Amino acid sequence: MKIYLVLLGCVSLFFTAMVKAEIVSSEKTSGVELSADWRTPKAESVLLMQLDSGRVVIELAPQFAPNHVANIKQLVSDGYFDGSKILRSQDNYVVQWGDPDEGTEQARSIGKASSKLKVEFFADHSELNFAAIESRDAYAAEVGFVDGFPAASDGKRAWLAHCYGMVGVSRGMGDDSGNGSGLYVVTGHAPRHLDRNVTLVGRVIKGMPLLSSLPRGTGDLGFFESAEETIPIKSIKLATSLGDKSVSQQIMDTNSAVFEEHVAKRTTRSEEWFLEPTGKIELCNVGVPTR
Amino acid sequence: MKIYLVLLGCVSLFFTAMVKAEIVSSEKTSGVELSADWRTPKAESVLLMQLDSGRVVIELAPQFAPNHVANIKQLVSDGYFDGSKILRSQDNYVVQWGDPDEGTEQARSIGKASSKLKVEFFADHSELNFAAIESRDAYAAEVGFVDGFPAASDGKRAWLAHCYGMVGVSRGMGDDSGNGSGLYVVTGHAPRHLDRNVTLVGRVIKGMPLLSSLPRGTGDLGFFESAEETIPIKSIKLATSLGDKSVSQQIMDTNSAVFEEHVAKRTTRSEEWFLEPTGKIELCNVGVPTR
Repeated sequence: MKIYLVLLGCVSLFFTAMVKAEIVSSEKTSGVELSADWRTPKAESVLLMQLDSGRVVIELAPQFAPNHVANIKQLVSDGYFDGSKILRSQDNYVVQWGDPDEGTEQARSIGKASSKLKVEFFADHSELNFAAIESRDAYAAEVGFVDGFPAASDGKRAWLAHCYGMVGVSRGMGDDSGNGSGLYVVTGHAPRHLDRNVTLVGRVIKGMPLLSSLPRGTGDLGFFESAEETIPIKSIKLATSLGDKSVSQQIMDTNSAVFEEHVAKRTTRSEEWFLEPTGKIELCNVGVPTR
Repeated sequence: MKIYLVLLGCVSLFFTAMVKAEIVSSEKTSGVELSADWRTPKAESVLLMQLDSGRVVIELAPQFAPNHVANIKQLVSDGYFDGSKILRSQDNYVVQWGDPDEGTEQARSIGKASSKLKVEFFADHSELNFAAIESRDAYAAEVGFVDGFPAASDGKRAWLAHCYGMVGVSRGMGDDSGNGSGLYVVTGHAPRHLDRNVTLVGRVIKGMPLLSSLPRGTGDLGFFESAEETIPIKSIKLATSLGDKSVSQQIMDTNSAVFEEHVAKRTTRSEEWFLEPTGKIELCNVGVPTR
């Protein structure tokens, strides 16, 4: 074991060995972790994106964007994304996908889906399971998690936050110029200035590396410049269409004591490796453990 | 032009078309951009890492870590990294490189370089060109830029911040267990809890996509599990050894009025595309323009 090279005190985020290790350690110290502390996403809110390289699992957030989620589910049911393409990979920013022929005569039909939807950002704070964390946030008065999704709030309204792995709806200039037929995922440092400017609809809960390690597009904004560069999407399907066992991921309940402990550990960083335990945390550095 | 698919209001960070576009626009509106607003890094502080896929350019920060920078330059002069390997690629975290045989009998000699160096974090705020920005930072009382590097401060001491593209020195458990023979670069959301815990020595000013889009390692912490998976580093050389014209990048002077304007634009986000201009900024979302 070449300990010397190992950078300990690892930040992790989604699906890393270190997060798993921390969970194991939390099990050992607290001994109170229950299956009730974890939830399995509802199959009706899960999309399965099949690439040649493997599967990406996305959990949708109808709590915040009911119309967009319904429209995306309609598009998915109609097979809209089957055979579509990843069109853009911009370093430290986003990967984006959709119909490469959008806007041309060859464009796919969106069928029964709506062609225009007004942006959807806000949910009523009092109606959500908002688990606030202690953090001095650059962008919002309050930040925390709602059902596993990073979120921000002004105390009355809450909205989703553009952390790594969050999925949003591409749009043009107008506030009704998106409909979910073009989607993107955050693959770099959180572009939080997009909060309340683009509709977020969910989060990748498995398979981020398949998207984040794609070659970067050489065109403006990281778009791929030729059809050869685009990455084929075999299909995007609703988990419900693939049977009950299609969702195997479990996500730590962000309203549980175990999650509170997880946040506390990532805030204090009291492991021996740290010379100056942090005592601070930032929303997009919390990470919601998945197993 | 398929405007519909273009996600405008792009965050960017280093080397993206959008940053360039913003610079162009700043030139147009202000008309005051001077060559004095840009600086060319000193060749003596620039490392050139040659991969099969291209060149990565790193600017060193002796202002903050003079002993580590001197040691790394000694290692580089001795060809220590020529034929070394990228050993780790952990999603949303870091890429790390060094001697794959570290800790074994086949380990490379570090020659005249020091084998142990105490961590170096702090510089005297009053002796730096600290350009503070207005931002409510989760981790520090004050944040801003020093000679193009993102930095934080308590008003007296200043230290470098772990933003995307920052380069640091791997270490083990002790505060003198690193020496610069193992290095890493941040490839994901800023792991700011590492500030003042690992010595930062510089920043990638060109070629980040060559590192950030590498396949992720499947071992613990993203280490590559076999020699076949590791990525060869042809060489790391000092720019001085390659002649005066080896550094072609220019970096916006972070103490210039043009940079102030850049920060203001990225704070207000008053472009028509934004529905709710942000009015806020976070250190690692500023980005220092390079040309």
